[in-house]
Amino acid sequence: MTTQEALEKYAAQEKALFALQHAGAMIFYDGVTSAPKGSAGVRASTTGELTRMSYQLSTSPETIEIISTLASDIDSLDPIMKRKISEAVRSLERIRRVPEEVLVEYSQLSTESDAVWHEAKEKSDFAMFEPYLQRMFDMTKKIAQYKEPDMDPYDASMDDYERGLTRETCDAFFAGLRENLVPLINEVAAHADRVNDAPLKRIYPVEKQRKFSAFVMGLMGIDPDHCVLGETEHPFTIDFTRDDVRITTHYHEDSFASSMYSVIHEGGHALYELHTGRELAGSMLGGGASMAIHESQSRFYENIIGRSREFCSLVYPWLKREFAPNLDDVSEDDFYRMINKSEPSLIRTEADELTYCMHVMVRYELEKRMFTGELKAKDLPAEWNRMYKEYLGIDVPDDRRGVLQDSHWADGNIGYFPSYAIGSAYGGQYIERINRDFDLFAAVREGDFARINGWLEEHIWKFGRMLDPVPLFESVCGKFDVSHYVKYLRDKFSDVYRLG
Amino acid sequence: MTTQEALEKYAAQEKALFALQHAGAMIFYDGVTSAPKGSAGVRASTTGELTRMSYQLSTSPETIEIISTLASDIDSLDPIMKRKISEAVRSLERIRRVPEEVLVEYSQLSTESDAVWHEAKEKSDFAMFEPYLQRMFDMTKKIAQYKEPDMDPYDASMDDYERGLTRETCDAFFAGLRENLVPLINEVAAHADRVNDAPLKRIYPVEKQRKFSAFVMGLMGIDPDHCVLGETEHPFTIDFTRDDVRITTHYHEDSFASSMYSVIHEGGHALYELHTGRELAGSMLGGGASMAIHESQSRFYENIIGRSREFCSLVYPWLKREFAPNLDDVSEDDFYRMINKSEPSLIRTEADELTYCMHVMVRYELEKRMFTGELKAKDLPAEWNRMYKEYLGIDVPDDRRGVLQDSHWADGNIGYFPSYAIGSAYGGQYIERINRDFDLFAAVREGDFARINGWLEEHIWKFGRMLDPVPLFESVCGKFDVSHYVKYLRDKFSDVYRLG
Repeated sequence: MTTQEALEKYAAQEKALFALQHAGAMIFYDGVTSAPKGSAGVRASTTGELTRMSYQLSTSPETIEIISTLASDIDSLDPIMKRKISEAVRSLERIRRVPEEVLVEYSQLSTESDAVWHEAKEKSDFAMFEPYLQRMFDMTKKIAQYKEPDMDPYDASMDDYERGLTRETCDAFFAGLRENLVPLINEVAAHADRVNDAPLKRIYPVEKQRKFSAFVMGLMGIDPDHCVLGETEHPFTIDFTRDDVRITTHYHEDSFASSMYSVIHEGGHALYELHTGRELAGSMLGGGASMAIHESQSRFYENIIGRSREFCSLVYPWLKREFAPNLDDVSEDDFYRMINKSEPSLIRTEADELTYCMHVMVRYELEKRMFTGELKAKDLPAEWNRMYKEYLGIDVPDDRRGVLQDSHWADGNIGYFPSYAIGSAYGGQYIERINRDFDLFAAVREGDFARINGWLEEHIWKFGRMLDPVPLFESVCGKFDVSHYVKYLRDKFSDVYRLG
Repeated sequence: MTTQEALEKYAAQEKALFALQHAGAMIFYDGVTSAPKGSAGVRASTTGELTRMSYQLSTSPETIEIISTLASDIDSLDPIMKRKISEAVRSLERIRRVPEEVLVEYSQLSTESDAVWHEAKEKSDFAMFEPYLQRMFDMTKKIAQYKEPDMDPYDASMDDYERGLTRETCDAFFAGLRENLVPLINEVAAHADRVNDAPLKRIYPVEKQRKFSAFVMGLMGIDPDHCVLGETEHPFTIDFTRDDVRITTHYHEDSFASSMYSVIHEGGHALYELHTGRELAGSMLGGGASMAIHESQSRFYENIIGRSREFCSLVYPWLKREFAPNLDDVSEDDFYRMINKSEPSLIRTEADELTYCMHVMVRYELEKRMFTGELKAKDLPAEWNRMYKEYLGIDVPDDRRGVLQDSHWADGNIGYFPSYAIGSAYGGQYIERINRDFDLFAAVREGDFARINGWLEEHIWKFGRMLDPVPLFESVCGKFDVSHYVKYLRDKFSDVYRLG
């Protein structure tokens, strides 16, 4: 096979693989948005078939020959093809080190584990989930050892979600956060009565909230020709390509900020996907660089932009007018402070900006100690509860709202959590970096999201997966240093809570 | 390959082919219900790939060997496998005559054409759609010529929707209808003032109409666990399997009967799909026998059941109560007569029962002349308008309400229209046949749809595609004879219009 032949065959295969993946994603999206409830069986069967076809296509002898041919002539390829081939080689090498029966066992175990977790969470019955949880950790570790025999297995597991992320980085990061944030969290808790968010719990009609979502998406510059908002129980973003991104939210009549910030968060993910390089679309490189980089965009939009004074001044007049009289007794300053109310709580996905990373830290510490063998699955509820008491000052009433709350461990996404916190913390450095080029919050005040989005596209979004996440971040902001994020949080919450 | 091996391989392939078809249908459904409008390109590409994969799989040398092996031992197969293989042999022969690139081009063209048609209709801009329309006709004819080189290409195109239907049958059928119905239509028109449907044009809030749709679907016995109602510009039904059927409607605040009868019509299609034999699901035999048989169910439900006095007495109390005071001055008899008001009109899908077939006839005549080359796409608006004047006596004010109204040509469903009229006419014979077993309209009056659906399931629905349409219809009703339908229409409209 010549390089030219291999390139042509590669292009044809890429198109077919993309179609199978697009189709599978569509069936998933339909399942959570529109499908009648008795239709899960047929979707499972079709998804299984599409997965099988993708697997066969991407591991066929012909594919391996195509990849090898191109790998052996890699210097002749353009930068995009070079990246595709080096990624394909890496992925093939890693997956081929894992015995097939281990992968099959793991796949079966994850399916069972997820099903048992759903029931265990509903019943708040940790004991029924415990053996599955232990096996999920054991198998994740085993697979990490196969994939990367020379790496620490927890580092290798994190690497699956955030290439280059290590325990060393995480330990320093979480220590820095803990040291600085725990005193701030305590100080805020001592002055909890300074912020009253009761007006946010008034009745905000869902029909109006839908209009507000459209208003906010418009403000953010999300192109409605390529991104629409759906409604699901749990908000999420799914990208079919940069030309078709879907985000979802969930409306609660008595908790309107919940949907508002879901829309802004998912909108941040969507903007990223909508602006990945067109030349990368339909390939493995079209999409966000990593989980942490993705979360760094969604949480930057949600919290740093969306919960800023300047953003409030953009949306407050609309809200006051359209939801009258709900905000008649609420000033713009009151509104800003109440959407930033911080309060230690049980559920990670509902945590405020200040306490959020503590939730993640608990999970990180537990994962790490499970990998060393210091903890067993049976020890997790007690350790979870102890750490929530120590870092957040709260008692966990049951495992449903404790160790059983997230689906990640049940589904085998072990090593994923740290990305959420790292992504949040990246935001601290983005602020400073953007301010060197223009005044970020002045742009927000003016509603000049074209400028903000233009900057993010130029520095981050357009690269898709062309770069690894750490080099990408460093190319923009230099070395990661948590102190910027800590300073941002301290300044903001000192202001919100009028701390001395 | 032994018969046993071939059977096993056939089962595996059937599953894969079903998955590809399911995925393609899902992408289509998403495109018309949820997708952002700038996403047609990526859907076209994926649909093209899925079509290519289906084509390759269903025409691969291995498939041909499987089919040949089973065909050569066909007497040993059970009746379902026997039908599958004889259908596969027929379909393989037809499809293998069409070059793969023609099919892929056609699939991509249809997706684009549908997107352009949506915009063209919105803007009433025929010119932007015209080149796509011409290409759709050209390619449909070309594919028909490939598939059936020895048949007239328009007959071959009709055969795709209604096996065995020819211009000869249609010409005679439409002539018979025209001869009998035109005098009746004229008589009704002369007494137009006897039925006043102004109360149906009052404001019926969409939110209540949505509740009414659920009420009607409940009455009809449509299982909500397996069938949901969506909203699209043009109502339609799509079946993924008998476990997942979607129907859609379009609400107009000032024309509530429009959605009411769309729901009943599409509900009739849905009931058929939901009751095809379980043993046929996921195979080429799971689904309705043909378009005319399908339309004979939907139009039987819409008009013969849904516009009967007995059905009115089921829904009138609900409507009077929920939409009060809209129907305060309308008796049940008034209501029955106004939902049967007959009036030459512009839009086929909103045409009354009596004039409906004239709309179909216009399309049939135009399709036939497009195939002979006598007409080009550019001629269609003028010819359309001329024929509407001639047969229905009305002026077409714009192409949106004229030649651009239906999606069929945009989607490549050319040769499909005659089935609507044939299917409508079948209903006349169903009434007489059911009345031999039980009193159809007494069952409607009692809301005993379980009995009606049970009968239709037993005589028609459960067979799926086990039988060809003509033998299926004849096994239930004997020879098709349009006079039963004509008699039904004459009796009904003589009653509604109090004709002497």
